[in-house]
Amino acid sequence: MNEKILVGVVMGSKSDLEVMENTFATLEKFNIKYEKNVLSAHRTPDETIAYAKSAYDRGLKVIIAAAGGAAHLAGVIAGCSTIPVIGVPIKSSTMDGLDSLLATVQMPSGVPVATVAIGKAGAINAAILSAQILGAFDESYHDLILKHKEDMKKVVLNDMKI
Amino acid sequence: MNEKILVGVVMGSKSDLEVMENTFATLEKFNIKYEKNVLSAHRTPDETIAYAKSAYDRGLKVIIAAAGGAAHLAGVIAGCSTIPVIGVPIKSSTMDGLDSLLATVQMPSGVPVATVAIGKAGAINAAILSAQILGAFDESYHDLILKHKEDMKKVVLNDMKI
Amino acid sequence: MNEKILVGVVMGSKSDLEVMENTFATLEKFNIKYEKNVLSAHRTPDETIAYAKSAYDRGLKVIIAAAGGAAHLAGVIAGCSTIPVIGVPIKSSTMDGLDSLLATVQMPSGVPVATVAIGKAGAINAAILSAQILGAFDESYHDLILKHKEDMKKVVLNDMKI
Amino acid sequence: MNEKILVGVVMGSKSDLEVMENTFATLEKFNIKYEKNVLSAHRTPDETIAYAKSAYDRGLKVIIAAAGGAAHLAGVIAGCSTIPVIGVPIKSSTMDGLDSLLATVQMPSGVPVATVAIGKAGAINAAILSAQILGAFDESYHDLILKHKEDMKKVVLNDMKI
Amino acid sequence: MNEKILVGVVMGSKSDLEVMENTFATLEKFNIKYEKNVLSAHRTPDETIAYAKSAYDRGLKVIIAAAGGAAHLAGVIAGCSTIPVIGVPIKSSTMDGLDSLLATVQMPSGVPVATVAIGKAGAINAAILSAQILGAFDESYHDLILKHKEDMKKVVLNDMKI
Amino acid sequence: MNEKILVGVVMGSKSDLEVMENTFATLEKFNIKYEKNVLSAHRTPDETIAYAKSAYDRGLKVIIAAAGGAAHLAGVIAGCSTIPVIGVPIKSSTMDGLDSLLATVQMPSGVPVATVAIGKAGAINAAILSAQILGAFDESYHDLILKHKEDMKKVVLNDMKI
Amino acid sequence: MNEKILVGVVMGSKSDLEVMENTFATLEKFNIKYEKNVLSAHRTPDETIAYAKSAYDRGLKVIIAAAGGAAHLAGVIAGCSTIPVIGVPIKSSTMDGLDSLLATVQMPSGVPVATVAIGKAGAINAAILSAQILGAFDESYHDLILKHKEDMKKVVLNDMKI
Amino acid sequence: MNEKILVGVVMGSKSDLEVMENTFATLEKFNIKYEKNVLSAHRTPDETIAYAKSAYDRGLKVIIAAAGGAAHLAGVIAGCSTIPVIGVPIKSSTMDGLDSLLATVQMPSGVPVATVAIGKAGAINAAILSAQILGAFDESYHDLILKHKEDMKKVVLNDMKI
Repeated sequence: MNEKILVGVVMGSKSDLEVMENTFATLEKFNIKYEKNVLSAHRTPDETIAYAKSAYDRGLKVIIAAAGGAAHLAGVIAGCSTIPVIGVPIKSSTMDGLDSLLATVQMPSGVPVATVAIGKAGAINAAILSAQILGAFDESYHDLILKHKEDMKKVVLNDMKI
Repeated sequence: MNEKILVGVVMGSKSDLEVMENTFATLEKFNIKYEKNVLSAHRTPDETIAYAKSAYDRGLKVIIAAAGGAAHLAGVIAGCSTIPVIGVPIKSSTMDGLDSLLATVQMPSGVPVATVAIGKAGAINAAILSAQILGAFDESYHDLILKHKEDMKKVVLNDMKI
Repeated sequence: MNEKILVGVVMGSKSDLEVMENTFATLEKFNIKYEKNVLSAHRTPDETIAYAKSAYDRGLKVIIAAAGGAAHLAGVIAGCSTIPVIGVPIKSSTMDGLDSLLATVQMPSGVPVATVAIGKAGAINAAILSAQILGAFDESYHDLILKHKEDMKKVVLNDMKI
Repeated sequence: MNEKILVGVVMGSKSDLEVMENTFATLEKFNIKYEKNVLSAHRTPDETIAYAKSAYDRGLKVIIAAAGGAAHLAGVIAGCSTIPVIGVPIKSSTMDGLDSLLATVQMPSGVPVATVAIGKAGAINAAILSAQILGAFDESYHDLILKHKEDMKKVVLNDMKI
Repeated sequence: MNEKILVGVVMGSKSDLEVMENTFATLEKFNIKYEKNVLSAHRTPDETIAYAKSAYDRGLKVIIAAAGGAAHLAGVIAGCSTIPVIGVPIKSSTMDGLDSLLATVQMPSGVPVATVAIGKAGAINAAILSAQILGAFDESYHDLILKHKEDMKKVVLNDMKI
Repeated sequence: MNEKILVGVVMGSKSDLEVMENTFATLEKFNIKYEKNVLSAHRTPDETIAYAKSAYDRGLKVIIAAAGGAAHLAGVIAGCSTIPVIGVPIKSSTMDGLDSLLATVQMPSGVPVATVAIGKAGAINAAILSAQILGAFDESYHDLILKHKEDMKKVVLNDMKI
Repeated sequence: MNEKILVGVVMGSKSDLEVMENTFATLEKFNIKYEKNVLSAHRTPDETIAYAKSAYDRGLKVIIAAAGGAAHLAGVIAGCSTIPVIGVPIKSSTMDGLDSLLATVQMPSGVPVATVAIGKAGAINAAILSAQILGAFDESYHDLILKHKEDMKKVVLNDMKI
Repeated sequence: MNEKILVGVVMGSKSDLEVMENTFATLEKFNIKYEKNVLSAHRTPDETIAYAKSAYDRGLKVIIAAAGGAAHLAGVIAGCSTIPVIGVPIKSSTMDGLDSLLATVQMPSGVPVATVAIGKAGAINAAILSAQILGAFDESYHDLILKHKEDMKKVVLNDMKI
């Protein structure tokens, strides 16, 4: 287990907070120290780029970036950082999340964004994916992933005979 | 007519050049001086932002930005500049241009991108829209817009009895 | 700053008013004098065309046109006027705004419509884009754009440590 | 059978001619006199509106309008004429015809466009629909519709045991 | 004006009635006598086909067919009748009307369905399109179409200065 | 193994034959006797319905119906027959198969169509699904399904170390 | 009629239960004995595969599998079993069911999933399709299908004159 | 730098090889040892699950899974393994990659797949994302990521003045 902040969570607007609470709760379940910030690729580009560029040196292992509509946040951060960037597409008021998904996932070659599902499921999974990345190199996180898989299985098995 | 460079055309990759030749040719038809650059929101973020920030002071009146897929170029430039930014969605190898369109047009409130049609029609129209913006304040460009409208009309009238 | 009416806002139906109040409020924030009209490409074509044709001579610099569904208003006005036309796609009761967006943005070469996002964000951005167009030629509007960008930044920075 | 011109076929651009030859050939098969014109809602709005307004008085019973992309031609003509307007969505170079279809069919209440299939099938069907409209009031056309249905049936029955 | 039933309105299910009340009300506004039936291409195919085949002989000039989802009603009726068939796509519980629209409009060559907009606007427009078809051959309906266009115009002009 | 014809394959047009050859070849691989017909829901509705109604009494266990665009064939047959109907959506010239898929699968409650993938994969799978249905009640077909699964596995295992 | 369990209904999550109650009720209407289970392709892969592999030997004739989003359940079960698998796409919180539909129906050649409509209609139809499969080989089920068709017809005929 | 195999690349079919050669070439550029396998969620489920379950113990840090259509491979592997799984959607013959993308990315909460762009760009980016994951914990890979970013920048800067 690591006492340092390993994951940086950024979101494009305070309105994404409701969905991203699921990320925070899940990171905490996996004992992952994280920081959270509102950062906008369009409104605070300098701060966004500075954040992305400093991420590796500040010891972050993963950045989780959430945005909606023409969602550029994850892509801009991926352009400026060297660590894995996970993109969470947030459903905006039109287009049912398709715009957010395509604007996050269809990155040009050279600059990947690890995209997860639209909305709440993606917000949870961004945290679990972070744990899996950490767990590939640190057994204590890996143990928690194993336990998480066992727990999910138990829930399903419990529901099995409905 | 103005001898200074008034329009900056940027594209995310050299592969967009084929479509954007239509923009250059149309700008020239309207006697608009322009500059052209390859700039990537993901691969050269610093240069992109520096370009956008200096645009107004260098005398540019309009920036035309073309990109495909998770097209972030127009949006990032719009975030960093104060002059109008026209976005040209370039069709990528999948999704028939829908990804490029949504990633360009669905900008959050506060940071507009003036989006035109996907591909060649949009590339031509980005130049005409620039001429219309200039023409609203400079009669010599306005005269060319009038002439352009007359020319289009003549072509249709000529085709009328097919 | 200019005391004359510089921007004409038209909408296809009174029902678009709720969304377009965001345009009015934003234009006012930028001290832009504007006029507003309901005009229909289908129900009052003569009045629509007359409006578009007289726009330049009446001193308008920009027309903002909002419509939904098979949204033809912005395109018809763009066909008949020489100044920049900004299109705001209004979400109709089906298709989640996709019909309005495509019918506004996919204009043929020769007749651009500067399309912004579907709905409220687009309504706000149409006003800001107008201010950017004016600001490229009039420093007083440009100063307000700069201030607007600073204000947006402050909001995000204030939200930063959530 | 009627020796007067009963159907007006208009198309937004000469490039639609290839698809619309199917309309002409089918109208001829049904002995329907027609006229054909290139007319653009965006490039020749005055001529388009004049055409639509004079249609009834000139004795036309049906207008067939073909256009692609942000296809406004059928809608604008429907706004200005009192006779039935059939819209043929022409596939443009992107979006696989979806833009043309939605821009043609999603008309607001009060101004219908009788929309047929995208492309060639629609071009043929626009002519047959015209024949059905005429045939509802003139037995000679109705007889040809009956024969057409018989012919189609024979082709299928002939193919039946493949 | 004609005292006989000229338009047959059919719908795939009683649940389409709410939307189709708009058709009935509009037909009545145009003094068009109509009949209404629930008929299902899937549940009562024999009755549906019998209805379609007898339409012309019973004096109907137009059939309006409304259905949702894999909407086959208008297409099956068009296959069995010689008079114009207008299709109204009804939005089902998923896919936001896209399935109903495509299943109605994308008819193969030889068998047109005159498709109008999804839902309420289409339901109203199906009635107006019927009136236009009748009006092309009967001045009394044509006068009502003219009046309808005037009324729509007055509403917009009244709303003009909002 | 059964020497009687157990599966009826119908297609909406001779042009579907190229795709449906895959169905025939696969049925033969499974030693399933079948018949094939061109039948159109729109052009030969009476023959289509008669075919569907007689299917059970003639000993058919499964009908496979292939059509494109506003694909009504499978649905109409399902409405008139009591045996399982498998629908194969054939990609038409526009909309990339989405219209065919939705028009086949989105059937109203009460009248199922067992829909398989668009195009060639679906044509093959329609035959395999037929074999699985027969195999659930006849061990000789079931044995062939087991063998088919073994064969597929061997191909993949053979490809495994590429 | 058969006293053994012939149909296995599985769903990916307990949250699918609300929709799938429609399947249970319809199976009961057809006197079909069934079992129900929660099984997840992702959370309990071993149990899912064991279930699929044992299905034929335990006497099941059909498996109905319901899942949403990246719906893998029906496909994974189809990979491991030899009996027909019916897939019910459940609408998830975004994308209006399109993701669930495509992830269920677009199976590769060799491994069919008999896909029915998204949501409630599909849940009902999965049960009816099961009855049709059983009915093709057992007259007692076939009689119930005939009765079901008669009942549906009566409802429509009763609604006919609305 | 690590001499052990750290990345496992699996694909659903040999036909995915052409696209995935881009992954292999990119992994080699980053000096990452990898293994490659054809594995099918539908045709070799046991081998697929065994592969996924053994991945961590065999020392793999990342699995890259490529598949098209109803793409279940990445999801099934993610269900059975504890290390990060990157999904590459491969465009199939219809739906332009949308089916592959949605079937890969829309995973339920608890089981993330790190999805990259459709096709070639995604194939390259899957390798780079792997390098970033390794690089977050091993400076030698991180140095190569830095160099890769510098190289991309140089290409763009070189293209800048086109």
